[in-house]
Amino acid sequence: MNRKIIGKILGFLLVMESFLFMPPAFISWMDGERVALTAFFTAAAVAAVVGGWLSHTCKEAERSYYAREGFLIVSLGWIVLSAVGALPFWISKEIPHYVDALFEVISGFTTTGASILTNVEGLSRGMLFWRSFTHWLGGMGILVFLLAVVPMGKGGYSFNLLRAESPGPSVTKLVPKTRESATILYRLYILLTVLCVGFLLLGGMPLFDSLCTAMGTAGTGGFGIKNDSMAGYSPYLQNVCTVFMALFGVNFSLYYLLLLGRVREALFNEELRLYVGIILASVAAITFNILPLYGGQIRGALHDAAFTVSSIITTTGFATADFNLWPQLSRTILVVLMVVGACAGSTGGGIKCARVILLTKSLKAHIRQSLHPRSVNLIQVEGRTVEEETIQGVNTYMSAYCAIAVVSVLILALDNCSIETNLTAMLACLNNIGPGLDLVGPTSNYFHFSDLSKIVLMLDMLLGRLEIFPLLVMLSPRTWKRTA
Amino acid sequence: MNRKIIGKILGFLLVMESFLFMPPAFISWMDGERVALTAFFTAAAVAAVVGGWLSHTCKEAERSYYAREGFLIVSLGWIVLSAVGALPFWISKEIPHYVDALFEVISGFTTTGASILTNVEGLSRGMLFWRSFTHWLGGMGILVFLLAVVPMGKGGYSFNLLRAESPGPSVTKLVPKTRESATILYRLYILLTVLCVGFLLLGGMPLFDSLCTAMGTAGTGGFGIKNDSMAGYSPYLQNVCTVFMALFGVNFSLYYLLLLGRVREALFNEELRLYVGIILASVAAITFNILPLYGGQIRGALHDAAFTVSSIITTTGFATADFNLWPQLSRTILVVLMVVGACAGSTGGGIKCARVILLTKSLKAHIRQSLHPRSVNLIQVEGRTVEEETIQGVNTYMSAYCAIAVVSVLILALDNCSIETNLTAMLACLNNIGPGLDLVGPTSNYFHFSDLSKIVLMLDMLLGRLEIFPLLVMLSPRTWKRTA
Repeated sequence: MNRKIIGKILGFLLVMESFLFMPPAFISWMDGERVALTAFFTAAAVAAVVGGWLSHTCKEAERSYYAREGFLIVSLGWIVLSAVGALPFWISKEIPHYVDALFEVISGFTTTGASILTNVEGLSRGMLFWRSFTHWLGGMGILVFLLAVVPMGKGGYSFNLLRAESPGPSVTKLVPKTRESATILYRLYILLTVLCVGFLLLGGMPLFDSLCTAMGTAGTGGFGIKNDSMAGYSPYLQNVCTVFMALFGVNFSLYYLLLLGRVREALFNEELRLYVGIILASVAAITFNILPLYGGQIRGALHDAAFTVSSIITTTGFATADFNLWPQLSRTILVVLMVVGACAGSTGGGIKCARVILLTKSLKAHIRQSLHPRSVNLIQVEGRTVEEETIQGVNTYMSAYCAIAVVSVLILALDNCSIETNLTAMLACLNNIGPGLDLVGPTSNYFHFSDLSKIVLMLDMLLGRLEIFPLLVMLSPRTWKRTA
Repeated sequence: MNRKIIGKILGFLLVMESFLFMPPAFISWMDGERVALTAFFTAAAVAAVVGGWLSHTCKEAERSYYAREGFLIVSLGWIVLSAVGALPFWISKEIPHYVDALFEVISGFTTTGASILTNVEGLSRGMLFWRSFTHWLGGMGILVFLLAVVPMGKGGYSFNLLRAESPGPSVTKLVPKTRESATILYRLYILLTVLCVGFLLLGGMPLFDSLCTAMGTAGTGGFGIKNDSMAGYSPYLQNVCTVFMALFGVNFSLYYLLLLGRVREALFNEELRLYVGIILASVAAITFNILPLYGGQIRGALHDAAFTVSSIITTTGFATADFNLWPQLSRTILVVLMVVGACAGSTGGGIKCARVILLTKSLKAHIRQSLHPRSVNLIQVEGRTVEEETIQGVNTYMSAYCAIAVVSVLILALDNCSIETNLTAMLACLNNIGPGLDLVGPTSNYFHFSDLSKIVLMLDMLLGRLEIFPLLVMLSPRTWKRTA
């Protein structure tokens, strides 16, 4: 294994992180929050020193590396960035317990939005900004960001990083060069975020609130800056979020197609049709189901149903209503949406609509095959035949997903909370959503869990965001052998 | 499609069923239960007339048929036998609502053991016997029984039936000839059942109780003849059930190996080791977890833990303790066991340990593959390489399983019971267990569900027992085309 290249890139990442502490530090400076400012600068210093030392000792790394190193860089990168990213919360004592601080920052980077804070409004504005900023960074991928801004030298190896960090069953590069792809992705991402800020400002939301909300929306994260999440904002502002959450759940390559003028191709995309179809059907069913709670007023019910569906399927996790109190049909639909998730290649989590399509098609092919054993049944998506390897990958992903779910819920059960709490907490973390049902419902939080459970949930968040395999690979003894 | 052969075999099955009504009719006659006796004879007459007419009109059927017809015979066979099998309950008005009667008999044949009866002891003894008898018949397979007792003519086509009805990812015939295999299976089955009856009689259980309990145990069904299931019997009798439930959850081909003297091969079987390992680990964890409820007395806790684990993993569903009141860790372990299930080729339900092994191995192979993309990773079980097709089959099975679970829970949610009730009711039916948690816990039953929910749960029971595909095939329009 090429250990030096891993150290070198991790060093790079840490040095970069020290710069990422500057925007929230600026907010703290503006507000005259001394303790927070010191905390950000201390954390930045730690990141810079450790990062600088790492890249210095590993500077003679060979350029060549393989899948193994790519997976390790991504998983270790996310872990190290989180460990250091938790420092400001902890040093400033705004979150005094380190495990809690780590939970909060992993929840931020993975765009989960699950919080251990009982009083969000008690945080300083610098810290609130940092929380939302982690969503924005984690949404499109921290390493994709690195690829977009730092010249990493030539060679195809950067593609391994992109593949390990990008959500979905297979990666499409927009253009042949990985770095250019990453740059285009980030430009689209920034453009959409700026549009979201603009619409929020138009509705009279203050600049700070708009920035934080837009970053939480863009990363489909869900950290709010108010204790009641989005419930206190005007219906217009909530509608802006409904629309932008749904937009950030769409595969970004479709926006690229739109920019290239290939409108038909973008709009008739199979995954997009399923995604929109699920949203419409769920909104209709839930509106009808919660109507009695709204005194029969369709408008109010539709408003909250649309917001909640958009928030849950894109795995954002903002809330305008306490859906924990809704009838069981609506609650069950939400649990299903939690698992389905958004589109591949978006900032959303979950299993992804693309995988649902592949699983359904391979199921149909299997039935055809058992009826006519000698027939050949190829699986096609968007008119192209899907490789056997991709389908196997999706199937194995599902098995790994189920295995992780079972183990997590068993460990969470030690806390003796209800099965519904544990199940939805696990799903909310593994799918990077944030709120679940019962004790982890939208008006509640993750404070009451034991440290062991919090660690399990943190791992679930990372497994969900990195789509399991990069982290699972770390468990294999083969990964750590010196020679391949 | 060869419709005539389907009609002919269905006719056969119905005529056979009219004979199957005779043992319970005999009990009713002995007890002088006139109404029940009439009900059994009426049902037998219906079965004989309809069956006779069907086989007569289809007597010129061609002998040759394919997978399609095999699947249809199995699924339609189970549905028709259940529809007629529900008649005695309904005609005698012991279960006045036909949907309930159908629920009860499908629950019997599929060895689920979920009941809509609030007072089991109110049934006549003839009906109690019929309930338990359906478990025994369904356990090893109604069509396997047919194959064993009725000469079906030569040709490999009977294997298609065996394959469609046998549980597990792949079918091993014990001997080259299907009919001989079926006969050996039934002999082993009868032998073990008789042994179970013997041990129960030794413990002082009355003959009628012993017969019914042994049939419920053999089929891993779970219908009891007492309102408190097994709680009222002596610890010795409960222990006999603990052991025999576990034994009926073992692959029957291992017993055949034992008879042939290949002891090592049988005992070191991979699936058996996993099965025993899961049982021991679960019993240990649950005993420890429920110890406080038993005032720290290990013996009592161990006794109930062992009985419950054995009952749930084999998907029998007998109960000695109300595990709905146990701590969350124990409850969660039981939910996991519900899904795992017993061994392939046993009378138990669930996903089966063999599938768990295959899924784990293909996951490991996938990780190796992603670390070393050019390596070849074959999956071996018992030293033999597993065919790609089998692994694909298992993966597709899992997808179908999840899809059915989601759809079922969504429909059940319309009744507005808790998510835990609906989830465990679905799992208890789809895995042919019987009791779930919350409102469908061991001291409760399925009475409160709406007819729609009952129909969904009946379908889940059939899907679980026939392992999904034979029934799913019925949904494909291709199945019903006249020409292949």
